Amino acid sequence: MKIALCQLNYIVGDIEGNADKILKAYNKSVADGADIALFSELAICGYPPQDLLDYSHFIERCWQAILDLANHTKDTALILGCPINSHLDLGKKLYNAAIVLYQGEVKDIFAKTLLPTYNIFDEYRYFEPNQKFKLYEFKSFKIAITICEDLWDIDEPKLYKSSPMSSLKALGPDLILNLSGSPFSYNHIENRRNLLQQNALKYELPVFYVNQIGANTDLLFDGGSMFINQDGNICEELAYFSEDYRLIDWQPKSEFEGDSHHYMNDDIELIYKALKMGITDYFKKSGFSKAILGLSGGIDSAVVLALSADALGNDNVLPVMLPSKYSSDHSVGDSEILCQNLGIDAKKIAIQEAVNSIENLLTPMFSNTQINEAEENIQARTRGILLMAISNKFGNILLNTTNKSEAAVGYGTLYGDMCGGISVLGDVYKTQVYELARYINRAKEIIPQNILTKAPSAELRPDQKDSDSLPDYAMLDKILHHYIESQLGPKAIIELGFEESLVKKIIKMVDRNEYKRFQIPPILRVSDKAFGVGRQMPVVGKING
Amino acid sequence: MKIALCQLNYIVGDIEGNADKILKAYNKSVADGADIALFSELAICGYPPQDLLDYSHFIERCWQAILDLANHTKDTALILGCPINSHLDLGKKLYNAAIVLYQGEVKDIFAKTLLPTYNIFDEYRYFEPNQKFKLYEFKSFKIAITICEDLWDIDEPKLYKSSPMSSLKALGPDLILNLSGSPFSYNHIENRRNLLQQNALKYELPVFYVNQIGANTDLLFDGGSMFINQDGNICEELAYFSEDYRLIDWQPKSEFEGDSHHYMNDDIELIYKALKMGITDYFKKSGFSKAILGLSGGIDSAVVLALSADALGNDNVLPVMLPSKYSSDHSVGDSEILCQNLGIDAKKIAIQEAVNSIENLLTPMFSNTQINEAEENIQARTRGILLMAISNKFGNILLNTTNKSEAAVGYGTLYGDMCGGISVLGDVYKTQVYELARYINRAKEIIPQNILTKAPSAELRPDQKDSDSLPDYAMLDKILHHYIESQLGPKAIIELGFEESLVKKIIKMVDRNEYKRFQIPPILRVSDKAFGVGRQMPVVGKING
Repeated sequence: MKIALCQLNYIVGDIEGNADKILKAYNKSVADGADIALFSELAICGYPPQDLLDYSHFIERCWQAILDLANHTKDTALILGCPINSHLDLGKKLYNAAIVLYQGEVKDIFAKTLLPTYNIFDEYRYFEPNQKFKLYEFKSFKIAITICEDLWDIDEPKLYKSSPMSSLKALGPDLILNLSGSPFSYNHIENRRNLLQQNALKYELPVFYVNQIGANTDLLFDGGSMFINQDGNICEELAYFSEDYRLIDWQPKSEFEGDSHHYMNDDIELIYKALKMGITDYFKKSGFSKAILGLSGGIDSAVVLALSADALGNDNVLPVMLPSKYSSDHSVGDSEILCQNLGIDAKKIAIQEAVNSIENLLTPMFSNTQINEAEENIQARTRGILLMAISNKFGNILLNTTNKSEAAVGYGTLYGDMCGGISVLGDVYKTQVYELARYINRAKEIIPQNILTKAPSAELRPDQKDSDSLPDYAMLDKILHHYIESQLGPKAIIELGFEESLVKKIIKMVDRNEYKRFQIPPILRVSDKAFGVGRQMPVVGKING
Repeated sequence: MKIALCQLNYIVGDIEGNADKILKAYNKSVADGADIALFSELAICGYPPQDLLDYSHFIERCWQAILDLANHTKDTALILGCPINSHLDLGKKLYNAAIVLYQGEVKDIFAKTLLPTYNIFDEYRYFEPNQKFKLYEFKSFKIAITICEDLWDIDEPKLYKSSPMSSLKALGPDLILNLSGSPFSYNHIENRRNLLQQNALKYELPVFYVNQIGANTDLLFDGGSMFINQDGNICEELAYFSEDYRLIDWQPKSEFEGDSHHYMNDDIELIYKALKMGITDYFKKSGFSKAILGLSGGIDSAVVLALSADALGNDNVLPVMLPSKYSSDHSVGDSEILCQNLGIDAKKIAIQEAVNSIENLLTPMFSNTQINEAEENIQARTRGILLMAISNKFGNILLNTTNKSEAAVGYGTLYGDMCGGISVLGDVYKTQVYELARYINRAKEIIPQNILTKAPSAELRPDQKDSDSLPDYAMLDKILHHYIESQLGPKAIIELGFEESLVKKIIKMVDRNEYKRFQIPPILRVSDKAFGVGRQMPVVGKING
């Protein structure tokens, strides 16, 4: 039995384009003599299609594409994911299905049983769970066809009352196929490998696993499709962050060399690659090629510049320095060195004249008031206007440079430095941004050392430092991680040994700034718990009393 | 049997504050000799608590408040909603529960069976459905305790495989209680009444229904708690859009005067009241009292000013006129008359000086380019900066004035007129905005007639009219309604008789502007399908090919 694992990058909703890609990979697998060409979950429409699934014409278009693909199939079975009508009198209208196309026909359909509905997943919003279990019999083999979460009920406590693979095992399968749409997070790769290995061992069956790659707005899919033999060894592992294809020649008794898999255990390298893919696909899939960003002289914009230059090409990134009267000399100087190191021309626009003229207009209302964040925000928003004007004029998409620590505590200006089409670092804590900078500098100095060593500052008033308003980032990021990723309450965090008043202050800042995060651009997700659809908190309300 | 319907306005997450409110109403019901005091779904934490439910300390705090409340109970049962641990080995960690407190103890717990997970609902994200059915036996009566959606399986096709009320009916109940968290939309009130009447008739049982009122950010809850006798007559109906309380003295054989219910079938009156409550609660629940808005001379900002003055009081609303060189004389003149009619002082800041100075800074880059939306957006964003600066200086929250038609087709400037803490009209089509204006003028002219009759214009270039870029709003809004609310595809809309190229153009505009709507403020929801959490579409992707 030869099984081709086809790991592709789909565009959500681009049914015809996705079908073309699928057909090309299928034809290659036919030429290679494959018995089965296996594709990922909801491949025909890309994952996640979100509320496109509510439109019946969209479901019909998916099905038409399936019928067209079926017409091209011969003696190699094509197995792919597609949303289909459930035709139920009771229950949701759709199934999240795996479709088997073979010899010109739709041969069989298998629906997903376990529908993840937590964090970034909302599948029960659309789909009815499968409740009938059967195998696919093909060329003397009995195949258990499962879809992503169907294999994710190994760990205790179990989230689901049904265990599809236990039900299927009772029917005596020879192998497991899994069509997946499993998004990246930097500690998810090992979890996923372990999970699939545990399935192989528990059911004493080989697992053929296909994931998609590519970024769909905020969600990043890393691929890493694999073949695991029934001893739980990862015998073949496909690429991470790029399309890949592998033909597995498998027989029940055949031996495989184990451990061919990619070791990528460095979180920062993973995050770098994920963010790069996120930028690339955001532009490619929305039909843009050129980016713009404000270069402050700080670490965040330096890292975003280096990342986006790598993702889009030097010629496609326009850095703009926007100094005000509070900008230090090194802000411009360091930025210039950074651009030289990257071989990128930057623009420079001194903003003070515009800031003054806005402040002049406000003099009648602001006379006799104290200087406060109003004046600071005018500077940040003037930069926002200028960057967006250039974006609107030349079609460059503005990259947002807010990091996760800032987004968490609201240390940023709405409509100012929080502008942008996509947030590159909104799921990367400040301490991780420094690690990214060191990773970028691993071969030679690209980001000037001074940017790495100087004290972070928003430079919106004289001699301002982040540390005036915020605790040390090393401490801040730890507390934020406990609160956001680990979902601990203030009491539990204090019990870990953190200072009570500091914990309460930080949590209050996080809670009070939900309104700012509501309007932040989509954030490239690299952690288990990113701001965005995976963390839905009340904007108005009392979160911790 | 005397049952007190307690319809209250809760703050999400304010467990102690909500418990105090509940206790006050409970004590009143005790004084009135009630046997049961009935409260709404998840009353203890307010509905919807969103991902606060993921925090175990939050669930513990809810439970502690329940125990504290139990201590206050005597011979009147207190029945209220609370999230509780499911303590299951398999399945989600929580139930959405109704708790019975009586004579100092937690007497019984009933979990919700049907968990809405569509549109604005995501309850399966958090809760395990109940699968065991029992009645609550109290003072010789058998009571079916249900939670909101549990009664919503009357219509075909049925969304659920389980029918809790059918299971409960088999146990021989005497009456139905329903604890609800049912948000407003302008055509939902009649649906809800009909649904509850159908339940009474189908099961031949009286229905005691309690909903919450108040706005929780975008979601507006309208109340309308009611008592329906077993003949399906609405015998008592509580207020809409305000807290209310009613003691029902019910005996199995007693006669009731039917039809005491409030007739409010005018969509526009409903929308007006809902928006007013939305504004009031947004400010009150987030601890602010003062609003600011830009007054353009157009219909949208005029309606928002009138609404917010009604909601917050004249002294709490600061309208600011921000004319540019393209603003017509009538824009300022009409706005001044509007403010006079309302008795509100407005500020005026001519923005041209700031616009010029921003454009000057861009001259080196923009020379030899065509004027395009870049220049238009500079004006809109300069207004945004000025309004936000005043907001930051004096603590007035900026009201967004974008209407649903504009939000749909992207006719607005991100970080310009799309700024704000809350979007008042983002779920109100332009044609409905005119109806709102006529409703506001029903007793006397508040919004000057000229604002109602002049052609809509963004006034960002000479002699600009909305009709330069957009079809007539009457036509636009119809097509948008078919696409957004009715979820019809382009083909189906064209088949209704609309012009093909127009339909395709409009749908393309809607699809392409998902990125703008991603960053719009929370929108007060008045329709079945508002932009926001109830409509989740891909930002990057091909939506209709």
